[in-house]
Amino acid sequence: MTTRHVFFVSDGTGITAETLGNTLLTQFEDVSFVKSSLPFISTVEKARITADFIDHIAASDGQRPLVFSTTVSDPVRAVLRNCNALFIDLFDTYIHGLETELGVAPTHAQGRAHSANSRKYDARIDAINYSLEHDDGQSVRDLSKAELILIAPSRCGKTPTTLYLAMQHGIYATNFPLLDEDLEKPALPKSLHGFENKLFGVTSEPERLSQVRNERRPGSRYASIAQCSYELRQAETLYRKLQIPSVNSANMSIEEMAATVLHEKGLRR
Amino acid sequence: MTTRHVFFVSDGTGITAETLGNTLLTQFEDVSFVKSSLPFISTVEKARITADFIDHIAASDGQRPLVFSTTVSDPVRAVLRNCNALFIDLFDTYIHGLETELGVAPTHAQGRAHSANSRKYDARIDAINYSLEHDDGQSVRDLSKAELILIAPSRCGKTPTTLYLAMQHGIYATNFPLLDEDLEKPALPKSLHGFENKLFGVTSEPERLSQVRNERRPGSRYASIAQCSYELRQAETLYRKLQIPSVNSANMSIEEMAATVLHEKGLRR
Repeated sequence: MTTRHVFFVSDGTGITAETLGNTLLTQFEDVSFVKSSLPFISTVEKARITADFIDHIAASDGQRPLVFSTTVSDPVRAVLRNCNALFIDLFDTYIHGLETELGVAPTHAQGRAHSANSRKYDARIDAINYSLEHDDGQSVRDLSKAELILIAPSRCGKTPTTLYLAMQHGIYATNFPLLDEDLEKPALPKSLHGFENKLFGVTSEPERLSQVRNERRPGSRYASIAQCSYELRQAETLYRKLQIPSVNSANMSIEEMAATVLHEKGLRR
Repeated sequence: MTTRHVFFVSDGTGITAETLGNTLLTQFEDVSFVKSSLPFISTVEKARITADFIDHIAASDGQRPLVFSTTVSDPVRAVLRNCNALFIDLFDTYIHGLETELGVAPTHAQGRAHSANSRKYDARIDAINYSLEHDDGQSVRDLSKAELILIAPSRCGKTPTTLYLAMQHGIYATNFPLLDEDLEKPALPKSLHGFENKLFGVTSEPERLSQVRNERRPGSRYASIAQCSYELRQAETLYRKLQIPSVNSANMSIEEMAATVLHEKGLRR
């Protein structure tokens, strides 16, 4: 297997450069990539040091690295573009086409994509705090403030998905466990009555749920395939009965679950 | 102010298309964008419905929308490319150059960028659970497992940053509050002795901290400028005395704080 050095260069956090680069690199499974992030490269001087470093790696590897860049400044980019690498820059590629299309000149402001200076940012932080305080049915106060309430038996992945929705999308998301007493009827916990339109169910596969529960309580009845299978079946019956939309978490990432929930509930992103 | 419709189209979650598009659009502050995400467009049939919808918007707006796409499949992309829009596709643009550079054909596998099928994904979920259980000094058990411990006076932004580091980067991150009894000396809480090399300090500005605390406890001594100022000064003295690196959270997003901490501590990303 060949190995390539990859650099994510940015004048800000590097999040966009990493997302762009990593998505493209998933298409080349047979190459082993050694990845480095170089954030906050916002001046010509820092760009020179970065370019020297990349040139040094190119020389010692005997092959040029891949550089994914999202630097906004033309002079910074001019320095980086000259290093011995396959240089892929988001702004080089697209900004001129957008300028022509929109008939407006770009601002060249650096570090705008992931900054704290917006009402949207404050709303995200509020949403994270809300989700943490209401996690796993801890608090039923202010449940009317929730935009979304995930419900599921224990350990189906409610909490990470809830936090992701709050953190990335600023959704006032929370979650509520379905306990034995709810599942045996099956019926909604009393605290959720009146909030039916905010509910989204999570399911899983008995084998997957048993595996996750066994990490917490090895060999317990709680983690047995029989118990997991029973709880999931009852939860699915409840979702069907009350027409609560649901998603199976067994083979999905939190990003995929979040995208599914937002899409199906028509929530803003 | 002009208004443009923007569509983020993807065969997966849409995260990459949104990140790419939003970063580029930050450069055009005087245009108002109406944004929609269209995830999971993975078949030619779904692509046809999507293209019809975009054409419909173009006709009713009297100007063509912007489409940021990250669809992997050539037939899907061929349908989308024909709609009446400025069509920007990550794979169209870059995949051929990468193929030539790497000498390897792309796999054309869909939805790979944010899937659950990797050891890295499981590590991220473990890290989220670890961070939640150890948040705000809740548990000192397994503190040796932490890769990073953020310390700060109350409400400087430790918790959201810690969760972000766990969620996005799979870092076993936790945090510990500096209380009055620690700050008056100033000295580290006893539980942190022996973990000095994992510490990262957070500071803020008195005005900003007072504002955040006032949202919780309006008019309290805890939220007063004098108290905030005192606590921050003592914390900064402590960081200097023990040579603990630190970051000022007053004007930074959690993404910027995380990038700074990872960069300065040399943690893997």
